[in-house]
Amino acid sequence: MTERPTASAAGRLSVIGIGPGADDLITPQVQAAIDDATDALGYYPYVDKLATRGHLQLHGSDNREELARARSALDLAAQGRRVLVVSSGDPGVFAMASAVFEALDHAPAADQARWAGVEVQVLPGITAMLAAAARLGAPLGHDFCVINLSDNLKPAATITHRIRLAAQADLAMAFYNPSSKSRPEGFARALAVLREECEPGRLICFARNVSRADERLAVHRLDAVQPDMADMRTLVIVGNSLTRQVGRHVYTPRSHG
Amino acid sequence: MTERPTASAAGRLSVIGIGPGADDLITPQVQAAIDDATDALGYYPYVDKLATRGHLQLHGSDNREELARARSALDLAAQGRRVLVVSSGDPGVFAMASAVFEALDHAPAADQARWAGVEVQVLPGITAMLAAAARLGAPLGHDFCVINLSDNLKPAATITHRIRLAAQADLAMAFYNPSSKSRPEGFARALAVLREECEPGRLICFARNVSRADERLAVHRLDAVQPDMADMRTLVIVGNSLTRQVGRHVYTPRSHG
Repeated sequence: MTERPTASAAGRLSVIGIGPGADDLITPQVQAAIDDATDALGYYPYVDKLATRGHLQLHGSDNREELARARSALDLAAQGRRVLVVSSGDPGVFAMASAVFEALDHAPAADQARWAGVEVQVLPGITAMLAAAARLGAPLGHDFCVINLSDNLKPAATITHRIRLAAQADLAMAFYNPSSKSRPEGFARALAVLREECEPGRLICFARNVSRADERLAVHRLDAVQPDMADMRTLVIVGNSLTRQVGRHVYTPRSHG
Repeated sequence: MTERPTASAAGRLSVIGIGPGADDLITPQVQAAIDDATDALGYYPYVDKLATRGHLQLHGSDNREELARARSALDLAAQGRRVLVVSSGDPGVFAMASAVFEALDHAPAADQARWAGVEVQVLPGITAMLAAAARLGAPLGHDFCVINLSDNLKPAATITHRIRLAAQADLAMAFYNPSSKSRPEGFARALAVLREECEPGRLICFARNVSRADERLAVHRLDAVQPDMADMRTLVIVGNSLTRQVGRHVYTPRSHG
């Protein structure tokens, strides 16, 4: 005899984005989900932000354990709990939402049966590039692309190919994870492509720890940029060929050509 | 004798994003700016949303008058008022932030002098593609690009060139303004390029009026897509070659190649 999971007994899994750092960039929708939840899973520093919320059972884990975390969250939800999976920024942009759907998609039959009644929802958040762009002015005011420079989950050649085509399309670009301790070469590699494809005066923006107390913004011409200007806490925005400065702001005009 | 504007007398211009529609997707930062403001300018329907806020003087205007609206807002702020320029979604993504900086950048000397003391700030919001992606699952979970299909401010050839290169880079794509009454051909033109560059089973997502009462979501294979599936209130997301469905959700895997 097979047991079928009963939908009424299953809980909910909410993949939430808590924005770039500042509390006043967390949406009321996400706040309500936090208020209503029983458990929170995520990378330690994000889950630690919820430590003041006494009603939550916190399950912090390391950064490289996204799939295991997603499975644990689905297990807890299948037991009837209301579970948060916490990402910074927006959960759908280089964060936990895809990992949760990968776990569902590739689950063994037994897990699939157990997880079948779980309601999965994704709640959007202010992703780093939008917060950074707002603080800089409007560098993403025209067509742009968004590229994760980490070669953890794709070949380095794919990344450089994409940057080259994006430059040829004259798209502005937002780079996530430009550099990390274990993979410091991401931004240097991107920079080499940009130097081949773009004019020396192209504007490159660096936004570190946006919306936090130690936020740091900088704008440089491409020919003055050094690889060490971006670390793992930096969001890089490359302007298109028309991106300009006005006063302390950077903006990309709405028109092109 | 020339009069210099005194910084203390000048007000503030806040370019705000009120998200895709639902009140619980408006950030507390934006709510605080609304509470503190004296005036709100913007496209009629966005400004009308603030009509319940009795303390605000509302200045609605038509959609094609962005630069005139930006100048009016700067004038009001220069008079010492605390002025909102209201965009839906995020103000930095195909919205008013760039228009405000264009107005500042190209101002005649007299305007520049008058506006010099105005503090301009941009407050981010949940842009349509993030809200749509969250409702669909995680179609933007890997590298992607963001293209406005309107040829109002750029040549149609630029748009098709960008879509072609983005497809060759295997980027997922978010299309804003796929179609309008005055320019109905934007999405049809994009579709023609996608049919040349992508496999017939490529997943195309349509999200109309996301987060509103009449929200409508649909997912189709490229070979089943018709040009009239997208109107001016639709956000279109084109998956990359690995984008998949699991249950009612669509997601793009974190890995590639």
